[in-house]
Amino acid sequence: MRIVTTAAELPAKRVTNAELSQKMATSDAWIRQRTGIHERRIAADETTYSLALGVAQQLLAQSAYAAEDLDFILVATMSPDFQTPSEANRLQGTLGATHAFGLNLNVACAGFVYALDMAAHLLQGQARCGLVIGSEVLSRLVDWQDRTTAVLFGDGAAGVLVAADDAPLPPADLRSYGDLKLVLQAGAASGDPYFHMNGRAVYQFALKAVPASIRRVATQPCDWYLIHQANARIIEAIGKKLAIPAAKLPMNVANYGNTSAASVPLLLHDMVVSGRLKRGQRLLLCGFGGGLSIGSLMLTY
Amino acid sequence: MRIVTTAAELPAKRVTNAELSQKMATSDAWIRQRTGIHERRIAADETTYSLALGVAQQLLAQSAYAAEDLDFILVATMSPDFQTPSEANRLQGTLGATHAFGLNLNVACAGFVYALDMAAHLLQGQARCGLVIGSEVLSRLVDWQDRTTAVLFGDGAAGVLVAADDAPLPPADLRSYGDLKLVLQAGAASGDPYFHMNGRAVYQFALKAVPASIRRVATQPCDWYLIHQANARIIEAIGKKLAIPAAKLPMNVANYGNTSAASVPLLLHDMVVSGRLKRGQRLLLCGFGGGLSIGSLMLTY
Repeated sequence: MRIVTTAAELPAKRVTNAELSQKMATSDAWIRQRTGIHERRIAADETTYSLALGVAQQLLAQSAYAAEDLDFILVATMSPDFQTPSEANRLQGTLGATHAFGLNLNVACAGFVYALDMAAHLLQGQARCGLVIGSEVLSRLVDWQDRTTAVLFGDGAAGVLVAADDAPLPPADLRSYGDLKLVLQAGAASGDPYFHMNGRAVYQFALKAVPASIRRVATQPCDWYLIHQANARIIEAIGKKLAIPAAKLPMNVANYGNTSAASVPLLLHDMVVSGRLKRGQRLLLCGFGGGLSIGSLMLTY
Repeated sequence: MRIVTTAAELPAKRVTNAELSQKMATSDAWIRQRTGIHERRIAADETTYSLALGVAQQLLAQSAYAAEDLDFILVATMSPDFQTPSEANRLQGTLGATHAFGLNLNVACAGFVYALDMAAHLLQGQARCGLVIGSEVLSRLVDWQDRTTAVLFGDGAAGVLVAADDAPLPPADLRSYGDLKLVLQAGAASGDPYFHMNGRAVYQFALKAVPASIRRVATQPCDWYLIHQANARIIEAIGKKLAIPAAKLPMNVANYGNTSAASVPLLLHDMVVSGRLKRGQRLLLCGFGGGLSIGSLMLTY
């Protein structure tokens, strides 16, 4: 599997920490110190579908692939606009991707890495190319009265166009920790849509399980370690534990907050646009979060 | 990929057409004539997770596989209990499936066949065995004031334990028809949870696109054609168009109504339990519905 091109689409509206501190008892200094977040984007008219569509259209416009060439459209999201039709299905119809199937999947913040691994398996079969997109409007799941979670999340979408090559399946490590399910919850069908999180428990989990997952997959040193942008402090601690130099552990959480399934591809796209990520470099991608779940995957850009 | 064993789990509460006709302007005769449905199960205390867990526990109890042997747990649903944790993650934790990852996917009524195709791809890679379960509490999405949709749906779960073998990928045809997205909608995040369906448009779609999909996949005659139990009239019309004898086109929609992602595995399990399906027989599985989507897959039981 090779990544042909990357793209991102973000809501226009920026919400700074200072603005949040006018709505709830928090402050810019508090948020920055504990999370590294400066601002996030919040959807106004944008939807999970419209953000994903922006990504998909850019991916096709930037590549030599036409919509009709696509074999699949995978959308990872924990904040779909509908239970049916799915974002993936709607993209298929709007793009006119007449040979593609659409499939939504949900592994919360690890969703994009899982979707990429599914894509890699599909590309070992009959499929030749497809889209893998993470798209979230998490602001729907945020309780704006709860300052412990409201400051963390943001909206956005990003993704990749991937194509088959002769390489074997990329090394990957997908794991669930369902016994820790209670430390992170959102979107209860019984009526409570909001995020509920035991931040300390998630932090302790991430610090233990994420380095172990990355070690299992990154059997060779990587040029870049693109880790789910949950919180700068978690990422720094993970990097320290793995002795990864900060220069190889890029972050953009300051600008977007935690965008769940959009986070890893958003960082990947930022790396491409800024020119830091170069063809031939080895990447470690790692998503982790609700479930709890971890997905790590190593591939060459 | 081979199916090791099948299982189903249903809510205890049966709701007959006669009972529905006490709540809305309909009748047993009207429902039977137009849909072939006699009764459906409706969840009381059961949830999408608890039904899926019942299936998973039976699958493991019936097989020589232990929870620790599982590599993946795929749950297809359009009625999850939470956006996170997913049913798949919760099953992983409860079962103690320490080596498995959990993943929820949503392709509405076609979800189980899509999940089975994903499983087939995973089993061509590193995975050796896993669970594929469709589980739905569609009664959450039913407007009991809308007699055109309320009579159609039911709750339930069913699934399979699958394992790798030396066979190539089973022939499959997964397609989206996103341009027809508006004819079937449910679970809008914007606040309207209910099913909205243009039944005539879905019928016309199914009658045209489903036979074409089955023809693409069933390049050899099959012993059984297990088609999504949306409505007996649709299934009969599809069978007629494909010149499939009624005896090869089993139905259980009379007992369960349309259970979306649970429908195809529920029928598969009924075929196993009743002794009609025998090892070595060739099966065509076909799911279709919201998206709109179709998934067809042929395999030997």
